[in-house]
Amino acid sequence: MVDFPPLREELRGIAPYGAPQLDVPVQLNVNENPYGPSPACVDDIASSVVEAARTLNRYPDREFVALRAALADYLSRDARVTPEMVWAANGSNEVMLQLLQAFGGPGRTAVSFAPTYSMYPEYARDTSTRWVTGRREDDFSIDLEAARVLVAEERPSVVLLPSPNNPTGTALAPEVVTTLCEAVGESGVVVVDEAYGEFRRSGTPSALEQLSAYRNLVVTRTMSKAFAGAGLRLGYLAADPAICDAIRVVRLPYHLSAVTQAAALAALRHAPELLGKVDELRAERDRTVAWLRGEGFEVADSDANFCLFGTFGDRHAVWQGLLDRGVLIRETGPDGWLRVSIGTADEMAAFQDALLHVMKEMP
Amino acid sequence: MVDFPPLREELRGIAPYGAPQLDVPVQLNVNENPYGPSPACVDDIASSVVEAARTLNRYPDREFVALRAALADYLSRDARVTPEMVWAANGSNEVMLQLLQAFGGPGRTAVSFAPTYSMYPEYARDTSTRWVTGRREDDFSIDLEAARVLVAEERPSVVLLPSPNNPTGTALAPEVVTTLCEAVGESGVVVVDEAYGEFRRSGTPSALEQLSAYRNLVVTRTMSKAFAGAGLRLGYLAADPAICDAIRVVRLPYHLSAVTQAAALAALRHAPELLGKVDELRAERDRTVAWLRGEGFEVADSDANFCLFGTFGDRHAVWQGLLDRGVLIRETGPDGWLRVSIGTADEMAAFQDALLHVMKEMP
Repeated sequence: MVDFPPLREELRGIAPYGAPQLDVPVQLNVNENPYGPSPACVDDIASSVVEAARTLNRYPDREFVALRAALADYLSRDARVTPEMVWAANGSNEVMLQLLQAFGGPGRTAVSFAPTYSMYPEYARDTSTRWVTGRREDDFSIDLEAARVLVAEERPSVVLLPSPNNPTGTALAPEVVTTLCEAVGESGVVVVDEAYGEFRRSGTPSALEQLSAYRNLVVTRTMSKAFAGAGLRLGYLAADPAICDAIRVVRLPYHLSAVTQAAALAALRHAPELLGKVDELRAERDRTVAWLRGEGFEVADSDANFCLFGTFGDRHAVWQGLLDRGVLIRETGPDGWLRVSIGTADEMAAFQDALLHVMKEMP
Repeated sequence: MVDFPPLREELRGIAPYGAPQLDVPVQLNVNENPYGPSPACVDDIASSVVEAARTLNRYPDREFVALRAALADYLSRDARVTPEMVWAANGSNEVMLQLLQAFGGPGRTAVSFAPTYSMYPEYARDTSTRWVTGRREDDFSIDLEAARVLVAEERPSVVLLPSPNNPTGTALAPEVVTTLCEAVGESGVVVVDEAYGEFRRSGTPSALEQLSAYRNLVVTRTMSKAFAGAGLRLGYLAADPAICDAIRVVRLPYHLSAVTQAAALAALRHAPELLGKVDELRAERDRTVAWLRGEGFEVADSDANFCLFGTFGDRHAVWQGLLDRGVLIRETGPDGWLRVSIGTADEMAAFQDALLHVMKEMP
């Protein structure tokens, strides 16, 4: 008796990844930037796309040379990055898949430290890479010695670590990156996922600063968050040019459409404006953390545009109570915790108000 | 001694897939549609993208409901197709990768018949699927009995066949589809890749007509060719809804950007105009085949917007000679053959002129 369709055994009965897409007034569930692009930015995107659309019958530049240069230029605010050190794809998740296709795969192991981003095991599964997680400390940091031991035992060809971590908001200490890059050595790559990197607090460094020291270090970024471009699907990385070249072997040809390249280039020209909202969101994040702590909640330190708070005996009831009041947050992370994205001041006020009501009504 | 970067063994030393992207006057190498979209279509794409860009800070519709409906509507010209029967991704190549992730993978086998599209073994390699090819007959058709035997011996979970075939232009006889669907049964899927399906000659049916008979049949299409949208990167398929649901388990969340969805929807609204050029290209294709045969070349029957011709003792010299005259075609397919895409009448005249010159100068 065969089940139809003939899905791979390990994929059967699995629900597709993704938070509920619900139409509610206050959406604080997928760490989107609450601020859309300005009319000037929208106009620039439109005129760039018109230009691209005129020759839409032709394949796009397979090497996306202009976009790599613009991304390198942007990253060079944090560290010297040349276009040859940049790679991009349709969202960070395609970047991660490509990294695992190139450097993971059957017979190889990828390692992370839990709790962490719930898509990571899916990238591993989809590339038949063995997936192993170490544990984070109670404050969600990573213990240096534990990291060293895990790498020595598992010999991973890929280490995958978000900084700040999703869903806890915890940034990686630079010495963790150092320790891992040295422990893994040249038989693997250490991927620091800085999807939320631009939201880090003052004094928290980017792993970009360590690129020149370790050629097995890969730092990924995205235009979805700080750049307010979740709908654009543009993820990218900075690494040794040899790593970018290696990824070209597994990338699907013409993976970045002419429209995506044009729109991303236009958005990058508006970087100062788009990033202008980052400081506001960082301040709102710090206010939210302080408010939650003031109300007696436990809150993880956050370098991101979200924060993880708790703890609740029945977190689902709290999540549902908030949703009933039109506030959608995310039921994710360790048992008892909830994650809220940082929205506008008004949205955070609505969240706070709803949370107080829900807590009052809890048994 | 470890090689850096730590690419998987089977990927080392491999050149990334892709024809040379050279800037020459007559580009007949990657089967693009020579006609760009009209100003009206470009305007519609632009205004649709503006609409999408205004909320670019939000993630796109993960289920791309409107686009699935529009694609189903378009396919329903050939056979009844509902939105639940449609799936789409960034180019047919992402569709193929997803199919192999879901239904192929380690310990499973994918089968095709050579000569065929040179990306297929790459999809298999990138998903660690075993790759086996049978042989086509001298006229590039597939022998029914040979197909039955290959399936019985190899027990593939995926059969991958273009119709028309690339690079030969050969359409699949419906009885080949029937035979393969029955031979493979429900422990596999038969993927008929109709990237060039709209260019088929009168009387050549689409495998879409066979969908209702076989729930293990998948028919893929693309907006790159007939729709003149190579720069858009939108591939799609029609199949049993259970197959589409299965692919959702392996797709990367939000894989189709808001910009891609908006631009594809706009292009689909201009289907009559974009497809209006298809008849012209089919006629030009038939003229090209006739001309080449008239000049004494061997030419494979073509249901596509390209044709395979030969045979040459030194095909590279012919390819280079054409390039030196500003005409870029493709050095691909079986030894001694070359593939030329069908361009405008002027472009084909330039090709013919250059080819006569090159042949005259050959030793």
